[in-house]
Amino acid sequence: MAATVNPVNHRHQPLSAAVNHRNRRRVTASFNEFTINDGDKRSIKSTRLAKLISNLLNLYIEKPSLKSLLQRNDCNAVAQAEAKLDLPTISPKGDISNMWREIHGGSDWENLLDPLHPDLRREVIKYGEFAQATYDAFDFDSFSEYCGSCLFNRRKLFGKLGLTKHGYDVSKYIYAMSQYEIPRWLEKSYVADTWSKDSNWMGYVAVSDDVESKRIGRRDIAVAWRGTVLPSEWYEDMQRDLEPLGYGEAMVERGFLSIYKSKRMTTRYNKTSASDQVMEEVKRLLKFYKEKGEQVSLTITGHSLGGALALLNAYEASLMFPTLPISVISFGAPRVGNIAFRDELHHKGVKALRVTIKQDLVPRMPGIVFNETLQKFDDLTGTLEWVYHHVGAELKLDVRASPFLKRGSNFIGIHHPETYLHLVDGYVSSNSTFRSDAKRDVALVNKYCDMLVNELRIPPCWYQLSNKGLVSNEFGRWVRPKRELEDIPSPIEEENLDL
Amino acid sequence: MAATVNPVNHRHQPLSAAVNHRNRRRVTASFNEFTINDGDKRSIKSTRLAKLISNLLNLYIEKPSLKSLLQRNDCNAVAQAEAKLDLPTISPKGDISNMWREIHGGSDWENLLDPLHPDLRREVIKYGEFAQATYDAFDFDSFSEYCGSCLFNRRKLFGKLGLTKHGYDVSKYIYAMSQYEIPRWLEKSYVADTWSKDSNWMGYVAVSDDVESKRIGRRDIAVAWRGTVLPSEWYEDMQRDLEPLGYGEAMVERGFLSIYKSKRMTTRYNKTSASDQVMEEVKRLLKFYKEKGEQVSLTITGHSLGGALALLNAYEASLMFPTLPISVISFGAPRVGNIAFRDELHHKGVKALRVTIKQDLVPRMPGIVFNETLQKFDDLTGTLEWVYHHVGAELKLDVRASPFLKRGSNFIGIHHPETYLHLVDGYVSSNSTFRSDAKRDVALVNKYCDMLVNELRIPPCWYQLSNKGLVSNEFGRWVRPKRELEDIPSPIEEENLDL
Repeated sequence: MAATVNPVNHRHQPLSAAVNHRNRRRVTASFNEFTINDGDKRSIKSTRLAKLISNLLNLYIEKPSLKSLLQRNDCNAVAQAEAKLDLPTISPKGDISNMWREIHGGSDWENLLDPLHPDLRREVIKYGEFAQATYDAFDFDSFSEYCGSCLFNRRKLFGKLGLTKHGYDVSKYIYAMSQYEIPRWLEKSYVADTWSKDSNWMGYVAVSDDVESKRIGRRDIAVAWRGTVLPSEWYEDMQRDLEPLGYGEAMVERGFLSIYKSKRMTTRYNKTSASDQVMEEVKRLLKFYKEKGEQVSLTITGHSLGGALALLNAYEASLMFPTLPISVISFGAPRVGNIAFRDELHHKGVKALRVTIKQDLVPRMPGIVFNETLQKFDDLTGTLEWVYHHVGAELKLDVRASPFLKRGSNFIGIHHPETYLHLVDGYVSSNSTFRSDAKRDVALVNKYCDMLVNELRIPPCWYQLSNKGLVSNEFGRWVRPKRELEDIPSPIEEENLDL
Repeated sequence: MAATVNPVNHRHQPLSAAVNHRNRRRVTASFNEFTINDGDKRSIKSTRLAKLISNLLNLYIEKPSLKSLLQRNDCNAVAQAEAKLDLPTISPKGDISNMWREIHGGSDWENLLDPLHPDLRREVIKYGEFAQATYDAFDFDSFSEYCGSCLFNRRKLFGKLGLTKHGYDVSKYIYAMSQYEIPRWLEKSYVADTWSKDSNWMGYVAVSDDVESKRIGRRDIAVAWRGTVLPSEWYEDMQRDLEPLGYGEAMVERGFLSIYKSKRMTTRYNKTSASDQVMEEVKRLLKFYKEKGEQVSLTITGHSLGGALALLNAYEASLMFPTLPISVISFGAPRVGNIAFRDELHHKGVKALRVTIKQDLVPRMPGIVFNETLQKFDDLTGTLEWVYHHVGAELKLDVRASPFLKRGSNFIGIHHPETYLHLVDGYVSSNSTFRSDAKRDVALVNKYCDMLVNELRIPPCWYQLSNKGLVSNEFGRWVRPKRELEDIPSPIEEENLDL
């Protein structure tokens, strides 16, 4: 059945009678607080649905009935945790130089995902920690005059966050803005005269050092994009309109593209777009290492919104550097574009590994209803330009696999990157339980949320500064300290890392 | 109009037709979210009203229309705060030895409250900080095996909280339990095998050292009782039944009395009641100092529930030590007993100074409706045994007097002891604005709540430990540290302070 389609805005597309009603009722049953009128309204306003889902993300709902696809791990979580207290948090690093292309996704991670190859697990966690760093180092304090920037200068970033162990050096910071009004995406300072009214620190470019390069068999350029931990905010703000990327039929969500591509001469930090900044740095690094005769790879990572930006980054890089091995490792990322977008990425050899958690709603965005039904519809009628579609291979995790996590639908916690890293650490295969020799510190899961079982007695949301950063001055008055000079963001192009 | 009265339980007393309807409508207008049916129901269930008020205490309600009884202080709060950054937080101490009895309330603080005498202000703040210490040092962490105890041993308490400046030494800790089930009053540890299942640390006894005693003209025994910062919790739990104190017609609220008096041989910390513990210590100290020929006073303080306990403590002390000058300095305390209770305290020469904030609801509890109306009723018909009544003189503060505080009905913040201390610090008289030479650190107001204007850029609820007390062990794992041995609570009678 051919449908008249507005290629840009799919929101108001009426549902055809051919739509599978079973799917719709399934959605109704899942979100049983919200009723969707099948009969009366032919067109369901997606904004209202978006709002409902958005509210859902902020609700703590009573635990659903468990379907035990996996055997519950009956080991006592507390006993397990206590047994590990005196153990290092990571295993010795393995040399992967003779299989780095496969680990990097060269063969679409065939036979490496289920069961999960230990070396791949380690790499996924490495990139996941790079993504997590974009949150840990971000100044969220709206009372700070530097709200929206990185807390540290790039030479200090990994040292401050305990990430020097990975053997990478940060070479550049990325700043982004958006020409569209997406109010809750941008972290803004309460202070009027501030470092930037328009831009946010959006991530960084890093390079493997000599030791790490030897271990992994090539020089790896890693790009980490910052996402959001409260996806409901931008989900409502994103218009869920597709926009062409400028080549062929590939189209991507307009809000993501705006963050990736926006620039304005009147800003301090985005006279060039995030895209320009990254491409320039990748180009520079590539040239440098190619002249030395080194093999180079590009690995782009991000959580949530950051995973979406990572994909846009990969697309652009594949056009500019056709022979460069490019992979995306994303965590809890939403859909980004249409089938043509997916196909072009595939055609250009970009490899994407989407790490998802079954209970996480974000990977099902946007078009969480529409897409399921239209997918079905799609199967009947062929390519529809305006359907959001996922790209690449999937590592699908399940919160129920871990004995350390609370049961119940804590959507904020389920979506959190630390939950992802925890589940990757414990993942063996799709029909195994959490591996007992997992070493990653379980306490990290509760840094920003409330996911760990009470028995572990790890406080929820524990990652915090003493007295919210206030310090007592010589007179005993509590004051906000000034940032060290070297940590104050500066739009002047930082001198390049001495390579 | 004589009414048939149940002297114990006033809850179901029907409202007489003679009740002043104007009062009732005034209450309705104040809590305009809740309608009270005048006509239909003659008896209003106080439990439901209690619940409504309880909800109210947890609501942040949009700001009401301002009645400007006081001139707004137009000084820029930020400018004021910045000007004080390099100033000490307190003025030099004044010698009050020649007027200590008046400052202690010997003449009911006549001519000392409006305008507020500077030496009285300093003393009120001193006792207020003693009361605040009961919160700052309390282990609220339900995941801690010592939840409900004091964080520090008594020799360290004042040092840890920066209160040695007051020149007092803590001589004993007080523990309390309740025979009645008042679930939300008692802080309980999540851990099964814990320091105490029944008791909470409830306060302490302290004594002025030689230097301070000289300044204030006598040896002062200070008793500080811990209250609650979320009064709605115990307000619902308290039955609001009056119980006789055991002497005459004096009756007090049953829940307060239970905390003060309960004991059980099967407990670790309350084989003796809080009352027994305090009386024993006061008796011991009195004997010691009287033998040395010193003049001694007893000053009892507390915030909220602690203020109620302070009054019970004062009543008992007045019976046991008839010639001892006894004063109560309370902050945001509810009503405690009936008129007979008030009269007996008055008759025994106990002096009570109630520091209240006009917008704070707690001083109007219990019986927030009933009492207003019956008070009126009372005026017509004389003493009613079961009417809750306030005791003593009042220092009535107003949140609108301070340029540093947000406008609006933040009931939790308004009730907070740091808000009280802030307003006392700035108080001059009932028709003056906040004094410009007030020195107390304004930032302290936001330790536990969100009361300061945003312009000051002091984070709300800032008083917190780095990483909620977790520390990184040698393997980089985040763990809960053990308490130092000396800070572990022990029921064994601590050796007395070497006097």
